[in-house]
Amino acid sequence: MTTLDADRLQEFFRPKSVALVGATDKSGWSTSTYNNLLQHGFAGDVHLVNPKTSVVHGVETHRSLSDIPGPVDLAYVMTPIEVVPRVLEEGAARGVRNYVILTAGYGEVGGEGLVREQEISDIARRHDLTVLGPNGNGFINAADSVTPYGLPIPPPLIGGSVGVVLQSGALASNVLAFAQARNIGISLLVSMGNETAMAVTDVMNALVDSPTTKVIALFLESIRHPEEFAEIARRALAAGKPIVALKIGRSVKASRTAQAHTGALVGDDKTVDAAFRQLGVIRVGSLEDLMVTAGMLAETGPLPGNRIGVVTPSGGASEIISDRAEDEGLELPEFSEATTAALREVLPPFATPNNPLDVTGYVLLDRQLMSKSLEVVAADPGVDAIMLLQDMPRVTPDFDLAVENYRHTGEVVRSSAKPVVIVGNVLVDVNETGRALREATSYPQIAGGIEHGMTALGHAVRWSQTYRRHLAGPDAPVSVELTLPDGLPPRTGSWTERHAAAFLSANGIPMVPSRVATSPDEAARLAEEVGFPVVLKAAADDLEHKSDLGGVELGLGDAESVRSAAQRIADALAKAGHDGSTTVVQPMRSGGTELLVGVVRDPSWGLTLAVATGGVWVEILGDSQLRLLPVSDAEARRAVESLRSIEILRGARGQAPADVDALAAVVARVGAVAVALGDELESLEVNPLLVSGDRIEALDALITWRS
Amino acid sequence: MTTLDADRLQEFFRPKSVALVGATDKSGWSTSTYNNLLQHGFAGDVHLVNPKTSVVHGVETHRSLSDIPGPVDLAYVMTPIEVVPRVLEEGAARGVRNYVILTAGYGEVGGEGLVREQEISDIARRHDLTVLGPNGNGFINAADSVTPYGLPIPPPLIGGSVGVVLQSGALASNVLAFAQARNIGISLLVSMGNETAMAVTDVMNALVDSPTTKVIALFLESIRHPEEFAEIARRALAAGKPIVALKIGRSVKASRTAQAHTGALVGDDKTVDAAFRQLGVIRVGSLEDLMVTAGMLAETGPLPGNRIGVVTPSGGASEIISDRAEDEGLELPEFSEATTAALREVLPPFATPNNPLDVTGYVLLDRQLMSKSLEVVAADPGVDAIMLLQDMPRVTPDFDLAVENYRHTGEVVRSSAKPVVIVGNVLVDVNETGRALREATSYPQIAGGIEHGMTALGHAVRWSQTYRRHLAGPDAPVSVELTLPDGLPPRTGSWTERHAAAFLSANGIPMVPSRVATSPDEAARLAEEVGFPVVLKAAADDLEHKSDLGGVELGLGDAESVRSAAQRIADALAKAGHDGSTTVVQPMRSGGTELLVGVVRDPSWGLTLAVATGGVWVEILGDSQLRLLPVSDAEARRAVESLRSIEILRGARGQAPADVDALAAVVARVGAVAVALGDELESLEVNPLLVSGDRIEALDALITWRS
Repeated sequence: MTTLDADRLQEFFRPKSVALVGATDKSGWSTSTYNNLLQHGFAGDVHLVNPKTSVVHGVETHRSLSDIPGPVDLAYVMTPIEVVPRVLEEGAARGVRNYVILTAGYGEVGGEGLVREQEISDIARRHDLTVLGPNGNGFINAADSVTPYGLPIPPPLIGGSVGVVLQSGALASNVLAFAQARNIGISLLVSMGNETAMAVTDVMNALVDSPTTKVIALFLESIRHPEEFAEIARRALAAGKPIVALKIGRSVKASRTAQAHTGALVGDDKTVDAAFRQLGVIRVGSLEDLMVTAGMLAETGPLPGNRIGVVTPSGGASEIISDRAEDEGLELPEFSEATTAALREVLPPFATPNNPLDVTGYVLLDRQLMSKSLEVVAADPGVDAIMLLQDMPRVTPDFDLAVENYRHTGEVVRSSAKPVVIVGNVLVDVNETGRALREATSYPQIAGGIEHGMTALGHAVRWSQTYRRHLAGPDAPVSVELTLPDGLPPRTGSWTERHAAAFLSANGIPMVPSRVATSPDEAARLAEEVGFPVVLKAAADDLEHKSDLGGVELGLGDAESVRSAAQRIADALAKAGHDGSTTVVQPMRSGGTELLVGVVRDPSWGLTLAVATGGVWVEILGDSQLRLLPVSDAEARRAVESLRSIEILRGARGQAPADVDALAAVVARVGAVAVALGDELESLEVNPLLVSGDRIEALDALITWRS
Repeated sequence: MTTLDADRLQEFFRPKSVALVGATDKSGWSTSTYNNLLQHGFAGDVHLVNPKTSVVHGVETHRSLSDIPGPVDLAYVMTPIEVVPRVLEEGAARGVRNYVILTAGYGEVGGEGLVREQEISDIARRHDLTVLGPNGNGFINAADSVTPYGLPIPPPLIGGSVGVVLQSGALASNVLAFAQARNIGISLLVSMGNETAMAVTDVMNALVDSPTTKVIALFLESIRHPEEFAEIARRALAAGKPIVALKIGRSVKASRTAQAHTGALVGDDKTVDAAFRQLGVIRVGSLEDLMVTAGMLAETGPLPGNRIGVVTPSGGASEIISDRAEDEGLELPEFSEATTAALREVLPPFATPNNPLDVTGYVLLDRQLMSKSLEVVAADPGVDAIMLLQDMPRVTPDFDLAVENYRHTGEVVRSSAKPVVIVGNVLVDVNETGRALREATSYPQIAGGIEHGMTALGHAVRWSQTYRRHLAGPDAPVSVELTLPDGLPPRTGSWTERHAAAFLSANGIPMVPSRVATSPDEAARLAEEVGFPVVLKAAADDLEHKSDLGGVELGLGDAESVRSAAQRIADALAKAGHDGSTTVVQPMRSGGTELLVGVVRDPSWGLTLAVATGGVWVEILGDSQLRLLPVSDAEARRAVESLRSIEILRGARGQAPADVDALAAVVARVGAVAVALGDELESLEVNPLLVSGDRIEALDALITWRS
């Protein structure tokens, strides 16, 4: 799969003439598509094609695509499934390059459907056709009033700068309804269908280049092309275009359903989470958050920081906002003395100039109280952005007065030196009154409700941080030139402790000192070298469950103990039919914090790095961080610092503080070694990595090869 | 504070004549209140009182309450603050018993305001007046069309069975707007104001008895009367009336703001959480969840279990529902074979009969596909309740056809043997089309959007579980008759290890064996008795930080080690000026899981029991459960089972499985001992309680007295 040409896709979504092939009065889809084109201002020609009926939807039909005089930029195909290939072939012959296929019954039903879908794919490739679908409702290009879309689009269709791409037909209508209700303007909405010859990533790619789209909103069941997705996400970040995604499949059940539904492989959801975080893709939990977050970012663009000054007309709302701000990691700083003094001038005497600011119900008497307060708060040097709590009115006794007030506030908002985010109290529609008022005043987008508004604000602030980091120059991933010590076995099966340790140690991963002894006496001598107490282990590489066989002895405090332990190991292994005469001698460590650093190969995203807190407790409590490889030192550090155990690593509870920079460097290096091993590597595990103050030491390691 | 008489409050909210005292054309509040009464169908008399203006709002005024002929059931007071006491006195003299005071400037502004508020309180008490406010907007009795409320109530006002009580004036209007938008019917909405002579608990109490109210929804800044709150909550649970509460103050900032705003003490938010859970009060995180959850429960009543059969017309939605169901602990069981077979009869051939069921876009052709599928799913014996994903249409080309369809589905829903919860896709208004359709068909309440609908369903299922448990007979709290061993010091300051252990041991808390030795030789002999290895500690009670002074010796493996350790302790303490000749000998334990069981006195809720996982890690990861005392064994068991470490206690990772029943009994008994100690107790801590397979043993304890 290579990404479709973005320019050609721009053209695809902007046809000047559309043919509805298989148009019929009997089909709701046909009626809807036709009505949508007419009702929402399509300026080009609409041709209806039906070989059997001469009049459909009240207009004369053509018998086939070939019969249409003049150019056809897009064919919207809703014929019976048997006819579709013929339509494409005929269209291709006549120069129609672009198709939406609404017809269903393809891969989604399995069996014969899969064959039919392959046929579509082949025809498209053979004739260089651009095909959206099949089994998709089409698209809505609100920016250009082109709406070949098979379900009703109730007016008004609100144009704007959010591009929406969905791997679900039914939800597209819900998203559209929500956008309309909240007055969130859409640039382009695409219902993908089966993605036979056009994938989500293709449309994303075009949206990154589209000047009318500021934010990309996605509903995803599966990510079919992770590498392309990652590349486009990086391009979007560089372009300052946030991607907001509702990716389902967090639950086992949903990922199974999605797999059944799309036929695509569904990777580990935690990896998706990690990938999104690294790529700056905002992951949301609901359709509401998808659109509210997208709508907010389309209005505000990047926000300069997380210190928010909040202006509200309500104490109760202020307190909800305080709770939600804490959830979202937003800071609501105390206002400066100058701000407090200036607010006292503006506010009624019984109001308190705190952040969040409750200007009180006095707004009912002083209509400019909110905007005056906003200006004061915006001037506070400790505030990065302002959040204004305000709804569009649902009824108004005096529309002209409302226009005056909202126009004034809107001007204050727009002329503010700092970004102002407007959030409403509860998630209700912006109704006709509100919409009319907004049209009359060009009032900015209002995020729907404190709950979703604060979620959106949190996302916006975190995305902006990633964006700023990217602007400051992308992190250079750590890479290594591999050193291959002598004596390593071939890269098949697994390399257990001894060989894995030798290899990792040669490549800069600090391993606990380890000596190989071929006799009890040598073991005792080497133990003196590494320092008591020591651990003694049978060296045999092919031995799993050594300790069960009596092949491991711990806490040996002197030479004599080592000597007799070596003998016990030899005897025990001999009894089990193994050679236990060669042992590994290591100093025994205690105390410190055990981490696990591992690399596995995700079926979709490739090599991923995990760093986790080890030990019985934390494994159950689940304290781990994933990152796609490669990573920079900075990214590895962020991973380490995102562990809940970071407090302990930093020295809480009487532990010696760890060298977190050095730890991050080791973690990054483990990742780099894995990347350097490349395609042959299945997994690499350093477990435990013992962190004890300055000392960072891998006690054991395992490398598993793909063959 | 005693709770106001519920019958009298019922009367308060159902006046047949209302006087608006201080009515004036100049005030928006006056205009709104007057309009609200007229517009929303108040059938009684409205009198306007203004001593200076003879005509207000177009009608003749009375100069004072005394001038009004006939009875006045309620006076709505919005005069200047100086006049309010006179109004109350005059009204009382004339037999007006009920008042809403809108006027502000009382306790909320501090200083003189506090004095004025006390005056109101005194007058109310002296004349036995029922007063709502001051500084409150009044109430909306939608069930009886009585709307003395100071802010606009845009029509339609939708009557229903949700009673709403708010400690915020501004949010009341938002809640009202949301209820209207989602078509959630209100019985009574009360904006409390300063709660001078009527508290949230008074209104709750009346709502529990009100036949028109099925669910109580609360917005709370602080709980002023926790004991009454708890009592009323228990009564509501017994009556099967869910209480849903948005209690703010989770964050430090919000609790400080709430305290400033209400002047009330704000307890620890975790205790609020624990109290709510025990009392069956549903705690929600947003205004949307407050009303959606209340609206759902008002429609469905208790649900019989957590196994949900889901019927949707969309694959995408099904997957979002799967993810959210997992979050909410809802089970989406596989359908039985019979169900699967029956669904195949109903569904189009390309649909898959899974749960969640996606009946596919074929609904557009077969209008009864959803209701037929619903009937099949409802018959599945593995399903407790059904969730139907369906919205009210926002536009409809054929209203009569829509009426027919929705009436049919509504009938299927109502005649279903199992409860059916209807949830919409996204949170948008039920607009005029939807409202008309619902009125024409009596269609059930639709919860707004998958996101909030699933949250509500989770709450509803969990509340129903608490309710069923309550119906099965409330848990008997564990209680103990205290045994007081000889030799305990007076109940002041703290009882450290030795005395606390003696006391707890005598009262059935298993303590690690402990012997007091007065010489090194005796220590050695007692060590033989309790078994090696042992711990030796200086016995001095008043000694803090014993171990820092050298007063603790661990891991003593034989008699000789004990003898010399005892001597070292004596020497070390002597050097620090203490008597170290008496020591405590205990067996040294290792392995197992350390818990902490403690009781503290919450300033609002009284004695609360905490059980937490101990040790360095989990303290940082925060694994604790709180319960208000007293608790039953069953409640203690639920607390233990809610710990994240329960997996380890149950034997994960090679640990010996603990006797969880016995553990719960110990936890409950610690609580019961604390309760029996009563008012003298400040706190009691058993830490660690070591759980190792069958053995449950407290290793240390501390009791702190209030004096």
